[in-house]
Amino acid sequence: MTVKTLDDLFRDTLKDIYYAEQKILKGLERMVEGATCTELQAAFKKHHAETEGQIMRLEKIFTMIDEPAKGKKCDAIEGILEEANGILKDFKGTPALDAGLVSSAQSVEHYEITRYGTLKSWAESLGYNEAAALFDASLKEEMATDEFLTELAERKCNPDAMRMAAE
Amino acid sequence: MTVKTLDDLFRDTLKDIYYAEQKILKGLERMVEGATCTELQAAFKKHHAETEGQIMRLEKIFTMIDEPAKGKKCDAIEGILEEANGILKDFKGTPALDAGLVSSAQSVEHYEITRYGTLKSWAESLGYNEAAALFDASLKEEMATDEFLTELAERKCNPDAMRMAAE
Repeated sequence: MTVKTLDDLFRDTLKDIYYAEQKILKGLERMVEGATCTELQAAFKKHHAETEGQIMRLEKIFTMIDEPAKGKKCDAIEGILEEANGILKDFKGTPALDAGLVSSAQSVEHYEITRYGTLKSWAESLGYNEAAALFDASLKEEMATDEFLTELAERKCNPDAMRMAAE
Repeated sequence: MTVKTLDDLFRDTLKDIYYAEQKILKGLERMVEGATCTELQAAFKKHHAETEGQIMRLEKIFTMIDEPAKGKKCDAIEGILEEANGILKDFKGTPALDAGLVSSAQSVEHYEITRYGTLKSWAESLGYNEAAALFDASLKEEMATDEFLTELAERKCNPDAMRMAAE
């Protein structure tokens, strides 16, 4: 019996985020369709393109560590996206939909932030320095997206929801 | 038919995090039992006590907005904790267990960070200023816990995992 190491944990988690990112692509497509404000739609489209780039980075990392690029079911993202689908369904056609979609997207971003942060840290411990730099690039994109969504919600989506409900 | 507003979204999300925090209490208990390093056990125990305080804050907020304190099934936390249980099971007795438990705990923290950030922002829009201050207090605790866990992983859990695997 082989003893599982940090390297095994790293590989498992890489497969987890690879699976998650592909589910996130589909989730973002549903969010683009659902969003009513054009600025929010544009933000989701931009992040969709970034996610495609992040998937390519993950594929580079799989190559670097001689592991086939293969996902592994990620229960966390399944649950997070299930919740996002609930918001899309329950708030469709209401003034609060965009505010709800921002919150759903931010729960996705935060999952990616925590996973990329961890993977970067483990890659450094394992001496996978090029991989660490790629994780860092994705981490920075996720943090910027999260910050932009907070700003957009506070400037537009939340006030719009209040204004529309008062009309 | 009533139109759902930001206030409805706020109340739904409050019930979601109330449910989540109670599941997190149980999850942290499993993590305390699983952790091998005493410093990590202590961090999980400290965060367990903080979580109890966060639940009390949520109950205060339910009272402030005249809503019965009741949870609503949160698919996201179910998935996140399912993944944490997988790590506990798959890496039990291995050098990488503590590093894995830190990553699981941080995925929980990040879910709370995103939810408390959103709820604080919505409470401000809705004029629930006292509630916003309580969410902010929980948000700051979560961010501090997340930062501490990063520091502990890089200083201790990850190097320990590398050292133990090399022995």
